[in-house]
Amino acid sequence: MIPVPQGKPEVVPDDGLTTRQRRTQPITAVHTGPGKGKSTAAFGLALRAWNQGWPIGVFQFVKSAKWKVGEENALKVLGASGEGGSVTWHKMGEGWSWVQRDLESSEEAAKEGWEQVKRDLAAETYRLYVLDEFTYPMKWGWVDVAEVVEVLRNRPGNQHVVITGRDAAEALLDVADLVTEMTKVKHPMDAGRKGQRGIEW
Amino acid sequence: MIPVPQGKPEVVPDDGLTTRQRRTQPITAVHTGPGKGKSTAAFGLALRAWNQGWPIGVFQFVKSAKWKVGEENALKVLGASGEGGSVTWHKMGEGWSWVQRDLESSEEAAKEGWEQVKRDLAAETYRLYVLDEFTYPMKWGWVDVAEVVEVLRNRPGNQHVVITGRDAAEALLDVADLVTEMTKVKHPMDAGRKGQRGIEW
Repeated sequence: MIPVPQGKPEVVPDDGLTTRQRRTQPITAVHTGPGKGKSTAAFGLALRAWNQGWPIGVFQFVKSAKWKVGEENALKVLGASGEGGSVTWHKMGEGWSWVQRDLESSEEAAKEGWEQVKRDLAAETYRLYVLDEFTYPMKWGWVDVAEVVEVLRNRPGNQHVVITGRDAAEALLDVADLVTEMTKVKHPMDAGRKGQRGIEW
Repeated sequence: MIPVPQGKPEVVPDDGLTTRQRRTQPITAVHTGPGKGKSTAAFGLALRAWNQGWPIGVFQFVKSAKWKVGEENALKVLGASGEGGSVTWHKMGEGWSWVQRDLESSEEAAKEGWEQVKRDLAAETYRLYVLDEFTYPMKWGWVDVAEVVEVLRNRPGNQHVVITGRDAAEALLDVADLVTEMTKVKHPMDAGRKGQRGIEW
């Protein structure tokens, strides 16, 4: 049959860790670039985490009326199925679920989202964090990149974090273990076609 | 609030179609390149299709013991939930479910998988087809690229097809509406770390 990918490392590091220890290190992943699939691949990753029975926290950092409703509904059904991990879905666009007051601006909402991520990381609330479109508040200077790097570097336990969005900061790429750039090769909108149900959302 | 992407086409084509007609054209998508996320993004797309209530057919063209079990379990639970579309999962590695006899080789198995895809496309069995790792049987000359292009181009109805795998043939990219290349920027295995549960599978 066709060979199975073996996942064999190219280098064996001299870090004093066993293979088992290296297998259970927390992963920071960044999906960036102008192409499609950055968020979609992050939600695909959440399927694996769900299958492991891990609690998953999704934080959507960009207001979006319909673009990810498919993923949201699917992950919520999975989270409620009782068969895998739990799924907690936080949306900035509708006001963060834990905030009792109206937030003045998108900037305030983004900052508040990041504060909650910090609290959850400190409390080890989830095993996988999907910080969707989180590169933008960093790009716009609303959330300090250096602080994000510091928090990610020092987070306790074995919590995996996936950050999506274009134009990820260099310092974020440096701290990431896994960076994938999605490149747009061809897109139906280039040919004048419009986004469609089931494909774009 | 932060602006929502409007999905505005750059060009309005002179094809005599209405926006509504253009919105319901079948999409052929290819996820290729050496980076991670090709299959993961395809399964993420399946979440949207599921949310639309569409029947989904997954065909895994490469034998794989554990690498996509998370996605498979999740999509099967979703398919059985009664809330969205159905999910039918076919695996070459365990013998295609519709084949009653033992197949001699991987080549024969891949050819048989493609024959079934052709039958299903002709019968309009599914609304979304995930042909996972299907670039490889084409690359290895087991399945004829020109025939795949021909079948995709002439398929009836409104059936979406997503093909994943490295080294997609030029002719396939030509017929595709949406091509995303996943580029590896950084990967934990480069630093000698091993694949781990919940992340790699």
